[in-house]
Amino acid sequence: MVAKLDPAARAAALKTLPEWKDVQGRDAIARNFQFADFNAAFAFMTRVALMAEKMDHHPEWFNVYNKVEVTLATHACGGVSQRDIDMALFMDRIAGGQTQ
Amino acid sequence: MVAKLDPAARAAALKTLPEWKDVQGRDAIARNFQFADFNAAFAFMTRVALMAEKMDHHPEWFNVYNKVEVTLATHACGGVSQRDIDMALFMDRIAGGQTQ
Amino acid sequence: MVAKLDPAARAAALKTLPEWKDVQGRDAIARNFQFADFNAAFAFMTRVALMAEKMDHHPEWFNVYNKVEVTLATHACGGVSQRDIDMALFMDRIAGGQTQ
Amino acid sequence: MVAKLDPAARAAALKTLPEWKDVQGRDAIARNFQFADFNAAFAFMTRVALMAEKMDHHPEWFNVYNKVEVTLATHACGGVSQRDIDMALFMDRIAGGQTQ
Repeated sequence: MVAKLDPAARAAALKTLPEWKDVQGRDAIARNFQFADFNAAFAFMTRVALMAEKMDHHPEWFNVYNKVEVTLATHACGGVSQRDIDMALFMDRIAGGQTQ
Repeated sequence: MVAKLDPAARAAALKTLPEWKDVQGRDAIARNFQFADFNAAFAFMTRVALMAEKMDHHPEWFNVYNKVEVTLATHACGGVSQRDIDMALFMDRIAGGQTQ
Repeated sequence: MVAKLDPAARAAALKTLPEWKDVQGRDAIARNFQFADFNAAFAFMTRVALMAEKMDHHPEWFNVYNKVEVTLATHACGGVSQRDIDMALFMDRIAGGQTQ
Repeated sequence: MVAKLDPAARAAALKTLPEWKDVQGRDAIARNFQFADFNAAFAFMTRVALMAEKMDHHPEWFNVYNKVEVTLATHACGGVSQRDIDMALFMDRIAGGQTQ
């Protein structure tokens, strides 16, 4: 069972994810990524897609050209779980050198 | 130069795209796709991504799990052009057997 | 632990995979796929890649344009396991309508 | 029309591609890439696939887990053309930080 992070654990986790923000009116976190071009943006999305299938945990995301807007939440617990934190850390790591 | 379709041409084109709707408050067209699972949805996105690079014409799209919501418009002409129609026809063709 | 299929189980499984052949000089199975174009071939590869990460079981494959040549074997058991059969069945299913 | 590079132009181009080697018995060039894992390898392949469709110039490649072996040649001229050099330079650039 995937548990919702308690407020202290969530606050501690978000300190390691400075680019991620709470979503207004919903228990979720979000970040906007910007890449050099569509080629780089879609490669990022492919890496995330592969990880999403491995983790069985999928993002909500919007893309137009070089921009990718991601929202993470866990349906099973109705909020932010450790899976969202793990996915956000993965995204930050692989986007590292490419975003501005 | 990419030209905006005139109203008659646009109306005629949309008759071949019955699943596509005008976007409220904006000169663009949109369709929602639903696939069996994320695997099928992301394969659809990959085919569209490959075509987008080939045509140099990119969608705005939102995905969560097996759903893909697409909006098409052409920046260069501030509205719907033949490129959007061509992309919509391609999407309909490749999604054919998979969407519900 | 992943076990190598015994000869009877392997023979029974391959009856459900008529397009797959034994590899000469090696305990593995192989199939050649042909698609309409590169776009369709790479979408197939993307679906397989997503499943490979989910199963933690990866193909050996060669691609040029619309052709994909796949070899499946399981390193951990030095031969063909149920994982290879499952992956082959998945490939056959998703390639179904597209190959010639 | 795509022209085969003359020997001097080919030699000069290969000086900018130190990791690429001539293929024995065939007018083509090849390089082996190695990534951290399948996730990174397949993201590389996706970036190359997108560029291949844009350039209408496709690689021959073999992948197993984190390894990608690429061969480049141009069918239309029966040898190595500027398109192969451009594709090789693109591959080197995007693989840069990831290969060993």
